[in-house]
Amino acid sequence: MESLKDAIRERGVVLSERILIVNSFLNHQVDTVLLDEMGRAFAGIFEECGPTKVLTAAVSGIPPALATGMHLGIPVVYARKTKPSTMGGDVYRGTARSATTEQVMELIVKRPFLLPSDRVVIIDDFIAWGHTIKALCDIVDASGAALVGIGAAIEKVFLDGRSRFEREDVPIHSLLRIRKMHPDGTIEFE
Amino acid sequence: MESLKDAIRERGVVLSERILIVNSFLNHQVDTVLLDEMGRAFAGIFEECGPTKVLTAAVSGIPPALATGMHLGIPVVYARKTKPSTMGGDVYRGTARSATTEQVMELIVKRPFLLPSDRVVIIDDFIAWGHTIKALCDIVDASGAALVGIGAAIEKVFLDGRSRFEREDVPIHSLLRIRKMHPDGTIEFE
Repeated sequence: MESLKDAIRERGVVLSERILIVNSFLNHQVDTVLLDEMGRAFAGIFEECGPTKVLTAAVSGIPPALATGMHLGIPVVYARKTKPSTMGGDVYRGTARSATTEQVMELIVKRPFLLPSDRVVIIDDFIAWGHTIKALCDIVDASGAALVGIGAAIEKVFLDGRSRFEREDVPIHSLLRIRKMHPDGTIEFE
Repeated sequence: MESLKDAIRERGVVLSERILIVNSFLNHQVDTVLLDEMGRAFAGIFEECGPTKVLTAAVSGIPPALATGMHLGIPVVYARKTKPSTMGGDVYRGTARSATTEQVMELIVKRPFLLPSDRVVIIDDFIAWGHTIKALCDIVDASGAALVGIGAAIEKVFLDGRSRFEREDVPIHSLLRIRKMHPDGTIEFE
């Protein structure tokens, strides 16, 4: 996706060989024109899988997941990192580790929002180490729903995160794949 | 907004005279068709204020804010509750108290994303006690940007939260106003 590549080149910040800051257009501050285009792209890719729900994780997964759900016209469920006191105990839990902080965190989804009859597409902002998406896959599996696709805006191919969750018959699509990042700020795209 | 009223009637849960659960269609699980309609409504209301940015607070404010920003074609900034290790120290901070947990929390916005030249519309899911929106107003004021409008999906009128942040010349619009909630689950709308 050329517009996303341009955004990364012009507005992204390479903090290290592993960390890319996109908070000026994808998380924290969101470029909604670019986001809409991303949602349209994901919808075009996954429509044929017949999804009934988009699943993502709070916070940074929410924008691309919502844009996708809006283009597909289906609900979006975002796993929460904290359980509101009003949520009740009827939940699925998955465990993930943050790529930047190494902190272990829990992802929580209320059971009634993922049913065995659902066909779920997981959408997130990054595929980095793959921990978050793996946790979301675990939640889908626990619910008995069918996992029909996995999408991410940006994939750091060099971290091989997709090996953590890839399985037969579940297509994985990234809108942009990064082969390597250099300390001087240059990025090699695939 | 009739469709939002229907959603609350059919899918909302009155937990007490003060707490309304909307996690089956507005937060946690998001009805994207309804959300798109909400975004269009907010955009129609605030377009004439000439906004350059939408500001909200993570997590539950993000869906209505994004939908609004997408319809206006302007960026959305969401204040974060935790500062990622990669964010740096150049931030505005506001303090809010959760309506459900009474917990005090900080809202954090990176300075470069709110400029004195910006015209900001604040969008949130609820006006309850008004703490979150007040904290967002404080952040806008600290940045020197102009606050040109405040919108919420649902206002609990009986809590009078808007008195905490209302000021001359800044229009406040809620898509739906609740006058009273009863323990038996019935809701009086205005």
